[in-house]
Amino acid sequence: MGVHVLRLDHRPARDKRVTSHLILAARAFGASGATYTGQRDPSLEGSIRGVASDWGGRFVLDYAESWRRVVADWKRRGTVVHLTMYGLPLREVVASLRGIASDILVVVGGAKVPRDIFDLADWNVAVTSQPHSEVSALAVFLHELRSGEELDVEFEGARLRVVPRAHGKEVIERLGGI
Amino acid sequence: MGVHVLRLDHRPARDKRVTSHLILAARAFGASGATYTGQRDPSLEGSIRGVASDWGGRFVLDYAESWRRVVADWKRRGTVVHLTMYGLPLREVVASLRGIASDILVVVGGAKVPRDIFDLADWNVAVTSQPHSEVSALAVFLHELRSGEELDVEFEGARLRVVPRAHGKEVIERLGGI
Repeated sequence: MGVHVLRLDHRPARDKRVTSHLILAARAFGASGATYTGQRDPSLEGSIRGVASDWGGRFVLDYAESWRRVVADWKRRGTVVHLTMYGLPLREVVASLRGIASDILVVVGGAKVPRDIFDLADWNVAVTSQPHSEVSALAVFLHELRSGEELDVEFEGARLRVVPRAHGKEVIERLGGI
Repeated sequence: MGVHVLRLDHRPARDKRVTSHLILAARAFGASGATYTGQRDPSLEGSIRGVASDWGGRFVLDYAESWRRVVADWKRRGTVVHLTMYGLPLREVVASLRGIASDILVVVGGAKVPRDIFDLADWNVAVTSQPHSEVSALAVFLHELRSGEELDVEFEGARLRVVPRAHGKEVIERLGGI
């Protein structure tokens, strides 16, 4: 089961850092890619591609004008999960979600979420019914969906790699070559 | 074991939404309060207090000028955990962390983290060794620390409460009274 994230309604002036954090969380917690709608933002795209290039793995970032088209295309070939505090509690549905055989599109709203996404989604899932953040909701959702195994994933082809330490920082840089 | 979050170096112009998301995630995932340093931001404080008032529970938000003083005070009475991608992998240390009897201060950096926090912290913990977001790192950390039980916490005294639904939105508003 592969996971792709759809971020709705990005507005560069207001959302730059939140959308960037959201997409980096998608990558770090094992999604294979993300699509964003709203205003196109070359600076966002550049910074995500920079991270993906430095830190390895395969992660695809796309832009789409119409979220409805992305969702409609996806419904023909996979399952659409919308993260919302109004949905069903994660703990009640996670076992069913882990059993989904198809790829999953995880839809994450911006400030205002169009009402029809609640009906278009196959699942509306709440990561707590409290207001917090699409970044934390997505990360905990992916973490639960993968049963924590995403934490052990290796990002192949990285130029930079952290050597975990109890104190201090250590980063190994792979120099060019074959 | 109670958990308090320390957010370093808030800058309102750049960080408003990220700090707000971070503190809301602290609350939603079971921390009892948060302190932030950097520039004081009355608008941030108002929005967090508004959420806490509407959605219930007890959550205390404080401001401090000196993060060093907060950490030094805390070290006399509890354990200091610093979340950083350079630290020890969460999965390797979470069992030890769950066994801590004292309260825990979880330190979460801003854009630039002072180097000495790595030495002052009792634990430097990495929620993946990949770059993502302090919001996702904090949420997954608290989720693991509480073994997911924070998802079942009731927030007492809430004015607003979500009724989980497979599709659509339902919120119950408690009207005034005794």
